[in-house]
Amino acid sequence: MILDSINKTNDIKDVGAGDLDELAQEIRDFLIRKISVNGGHLGSNLGAVELTMALHLAADLPQDKIVWDVGHQSYTHKILTGRKDEFDKLRQFGGISGFPKRRESNCDVFDTGHSSTSISAGLGLAKARDLAGGDYGVYAVIGDGALTGGMAYEALNNAADLKTNYVIILNDNNMSIAENVGGVSSYLQDIRTADAYRNFKMGLEDALNRLPGGVAVVDKLKKYKSSFKQLVVPGMFFEDMGITYLGPVDGHDIKAMVKVFREARRYPKCVIVHVLTQKGKGYAPAERHPARFHGAEPFDIETGLPAVNRTKANYTDVFSTVMLKLAERNPAVCAITAAMPDGTGLKRFSRRFPERFFDVGIAEEHAVTFAAGLAAGGFVPIVAIYSSFLQRAYDQIIHDVCIQELPVIFAIDRAGIVGSDGETHQGIFDLSYLSTIPNMTIMAPKNKWELSDMLKFAVKFGAPVAVRYPRGLAYDGLEEYRKPVIYGQSELIYEESDIALLAVGSMVSVAEKVRDVLKSEHGMHVTLVNARFVKPIDEEMVAYLAKQHRLIVTMEENVKCGGFGEHVRSYVDENRISVDVLVCALPDDYVEHGNVSILARQVGIDCDSIVEKIVNETTP
Amino acid sequence: MILDSINKTNDIKDVGAGDLDELAQEIRDFLIRKISVNGGHLGSNLGAVELTMALHLAADLPQDKIVWDVGHQSYTHKILTGRKDEFDKLRQFGGISGFPKRRESNCDVFDTGHSSTSISAGLGLAKARDLAGGDYGVYAVIGDGALTGGMAYEALNNAADLKTNYVIILNDNNMSIAENVGGVSSYLQDIRTADAYRNFKMGLEDALNRLPGGVAVVDKLKKYKSSFKQLVVPGMFFEDMGITYLGPVDGHDIKAMVKVFREARRYPKCVIVHVLTQKGKGYAPAERHPARFHGAEPFDIETGLPAVNRTKANYTDVFSTVMLKLAERNPAVCAITAAMPDGTGLKRFSRRFPERFFDVGIAEEHAVTFAAGLAAGGFVPIVAIYSSFLQRAYDQIIHDVCIQELPVIFAIDRAGIVGSDGETHQGIFDLSYLSTIPNMTIMAPKNKWELSDMLKFAVKFGAPVAVRYPRGLAYDGLEEYRKPVIYGQSELIYEESDIALLAVGSMVSVAEKVRDVLKSEHGMHVTLVNARFVKPIDEEMVAYLAKQHRLIVTMEENVKCGGFGEHVRSYVDENRISVDVLVCALPDDYVEHGNVSILARQVGIDCDSIVEKIVNETTP
Repeated sequence: MILDSINKTNDIKDVGAGDLDELAQEIRDFLIRKISVNGGHLGSNLGAVELTMALHLAADLPQDKIVWDVGHQSYTHKILTGRKDEFDKLRQFGGISGFPKRRESNCDVFDTGHSSTSISAGLGLAKARDLAGGDYGVYAVIGDGALTGGMAYEALNNAADLKTNYVIILNDNNMSIAENVGGVSSYLQDIRTADAYRNFKMGLEDALNRLPGGVAVVDKLKKYKSSFKQLVVPGMFFEDMGITYLGPVDGHDIKAMVKVFREARRYPKCVIVHVLTQKGKGYAPAERHPARFHGAEPFDIETGLPAVNRTKANYTDVFSTVMLKLAERNPAVCAITAAMPDGTGLKRFSRRFPERFFDVGIAEEHAVTFAAGLAAGGFVPIVAIYSSFLQRAYDQIIHDVCIQELPVIFAIDRAGIVGSDGETHQGIFDLSYLSTIPNMTIMAPKNKWELSDMLKFAVKFGAPVAVRYPRGLAYDGLEEYRKPVIYGQSELIYEESDIALLAVGSMVSVAEKVRDVLKSEHGMHVTLVNARFVKPIDEEMVAYLAKQHRLIVTMEENVKCGGFGEHVRSYVDENRISVDVLVCALPDDYVEHGNVSILARQVGIDCDSIVEKIVNETTP
Repeated sequence: MILDSINKTNDIKDVGAGDLDELAQEIRDFLIRKISVNGGHLGSNLGAVELTMALHLAADLPQDKIVWDVGHQSYTHKILTGRKDEFDKLRQFGGISGFPKRRESNCDVFDTGHSSTSISAGLGLAKARDLAGGDYGVYAVIGDGALTGGMAYEALNNAADLKTNYVIILNDNNMSIAENVGGVSSYLQDIRTADAYRNFKMGLEDALNRLPGGVAVVDKLKKYKSSFKQLVVPGMFFEDMGITYLGPVDGHDIKAMVKVFREARRYPKCVIVHVLTQKGKGYAPAERHPARFHGAEPFDIETGLPAVNRTKANYTDVFSTVMLKLAERNPAVCAITAAMPDGTGLKRFSRRFPERFFDVGIAEEHAVTFAAGLAAGGFVPIVAIYSSFLQRAYDQIIHDVCIQELPVIFAIDRAGIVGSDGETHQGIFDLSYLSTIPNMTIMAPKNKWELSDMLKFAVKFGAPVAVRYPRGLAYDGLEEYRKPVIYGQSELIYEESDIALLAVGSMVSVAEKVRDVLKSEHGMHVTLVNARFVKPIDEEMVAYLAKQHRLIVTMEENVKCGGFGEHVRSYVDENRISVDVLVCALPDDYVEHGNVSILARQVGIDCDSIVEKIVNETTP
């Protein structure tokens, strides 16, 4: 195995040119094997094997700086920088991350996770290099999907002024996570099938040169340099901004890429190298089902089928089904996704109601303001965005939705601890940042039926409202508790005395266990209330609980600062209500990657930790 | 006066064609007269007089929908829609807003204030129209500066797919608030001076047609349609995305614009009309000093000089001066602005240290991640962005700065109540949204010397830190209190007993007055502490105060939810410290436009309101 010789940074430079394709194949096999066991981002990594190898061959590491946009395609980079042996613990608690991490390697120069940041970060590194008088290379590797994110364009616009070298590698697989959308995508597609252009260019010059007097026309063309470029360069979109375009180049041809990467380094300005790759390259199931193998669960290599057959619905499935019903009943209901039709569960909606479905690309800011426009036009848009990605649209939620009180519904999936994607993807801030916003209503369902009920409530509500729910299986307990959803009202599930548990969404099922332990092992009398509303809190219920309990325990899968528990505490304090409040929430810290239940224990929101806190609090 | 006949929507349609230029002049005089008294956005409004008139002539109002990007250029629109007589109370409490407001008129279809939202909102309105089977026109009017904002590009990318009409009017004055920057700007500049293109196009077709066989070449060109377009159309940047480009057209020629606006309505797709205007048009001082007349204070019409001569420094001036000193002493200090070199006070820095100064355009997201890149490259970037605009970069602060603990400094001007710009511009959320972020440190200075000391501290701090300060005069009291800034430590100013005032930043000077009243009129003993740090709070000080006071009063110019007071309350409660906490902060609501002191009283953070709260709280 050639791969055996790859044990540290730059070992690849000792591999013979004739062995590189074989090494690529070995890396591919390695990735498929490891990801089939642990899960991970397969398709994007299979697509970027040769690109990464070529970059390692062309660049000087660790002097040169590579910024990986999104970062989930950096597995080959990890293999080539001495982390091959750590792949058995990839994305597991204590193991290496599925994303670049500065703490892991001096070849990881900038942490990524969310889309479209690499050009900005790389430009910062390039400017820092210039100010310090350095001459190392800076490379940003960005996918065509990430290029639809507005900040990538803000950065391109800024990079155009650069008078020194900066190489942007556009890894174009004509696909972000799902099908790509929008004007830029179709433009890139034109270039991918650029034979027409090339033939045209050759044909035109030939034709002109053959004509009597035609040479003069070619000269005339060349005199108007920028116009001439428009005629012959496919990457005019970038050239228009002042960025040199090189490409397109075959992203599975290592030799060709090494050559163009080296050439790109020679320009004293910003250069974009357009590389064409295939997502899932070399593994048939991933080539056929790119969305399924984007972020894959463990799978059987032979068949490509999931290793564990899921029989129960997750919250995304429930959302998916409810959306169909809502749209059937109400012709004003629309659905918006930012490049996540599969992940958000809107795929079925898109097939059934194509005219009311909008995939706006990786563009959370636009998604929210576009939804506000739809709402101003009389429709009821439901914007489905993961919790951590919705952070991108904080200002738009304030400025375009809530100041005007437009009836936009936010369906916030992946809220709370998401597990193996780690720090960048944990949805642990939404209850806090949404709570700061006047005119916002925030809900979280305890189980799958309540998600349905809350969405129905939201559609009729007529003002901004967020429904947040976690990644993973939809809780199917407490089916018999299905009090109608009424604005601002919580749901009393078990009423006793002494201790009152007031739990938000996913924490209701934890609270059930906590209650069982408190009762059976500590002989306590325990009330359980499903909060339902995080904003506004159910003040009447809090006041009522305070009368017959010595302690109210709030439970939420969100940071403590600015979250539900602090709202309850504020209300109690301001109204001089005599009851102790124990806030169980996440600490003021990021949460790394790993199994959700390990992480829940780490941050102290699992059953045992909460029981311990309550017992400590109530023991004099 | 022709203007006398303009009293409601569409009155302009009764004005004779020969009188339109005269009306434009009268509107200009009206604007200059009114703004010279009340202040407001002069330059952008003078530039858009004819554009607005042409749009009102070409469109059917109120059926057609006009979305004004940023919105501060909508004064002529207000005049033409029956609000002329309300200009004496423009931007004043209870008067009309300086921005479009749905509550003011059925011709204001979408509220704006922040940049780059119009294309998204307009696209939403266009899709809503299509879904409802309507056929009204939708126009987004966006400046070239706003076009550098990423979400404008996200929206363009999405609008390219549209199969029905949507007109984007690019109001290109080659200037946002200050000088424009970046690749798109230089591209537009190329078009502005597009004679070369036009001559070239004519020349080429002529030349080819005159050649033997040249007609065939023209045919060949036309066959490759998109390539041919590249040859002859100046707006290829937009055409590349699939958006039809019309222009450039003279933005002070009403007749020409009416014609092109009507033509634009005929395309069954997204059309961009490129209109060239001059900011400040028709008023010499505004033409000469566009930055000064962007958001103008009351001025003398004759000279263009401010009506009131400011003798004291405001916080922006102090920041401006300190930045020079910091950069002189430390070669790693860099400064970044998002198109606000004047407003943030960085103009002097840009002249003195041009290589360390970065104006990235209206691009807050990129600004923050670019700064993170500079920090990862070993520099100390200071990002100066107004509080409400920094909301745009909430995710980047979490994801690119704070997860990696990169030493980026946020200099947050216009924090707190800003006054006449109203809801969209009030900086009343920053303490809350920044507090949610792990690894963030937040400070606020009590006076001008402390702003300087905090910036010096921040540069040495080596981790993410925000310093927030208000719009307007820098407080110059309490000069003798200048304890060194130490991480997490507050400053005890007057120590007594009974009541402890714990005030943040701008509220320290209010607290001084509150203390005087409590002592003189209510005989109370009052301690005053300058909080300095909002995150982390000074827990030791809180514990110390609790021992000798029955009430701690927190004071902040920020919403209560998630703000400083709630941090203090949490600490007190969690540690079972026996003291009452009274949180004085803004309610969970937006704050409209008006004089700052009127607004402070409205929201209950002026001296009288706080005294009243304290007296109520302490009276049994």
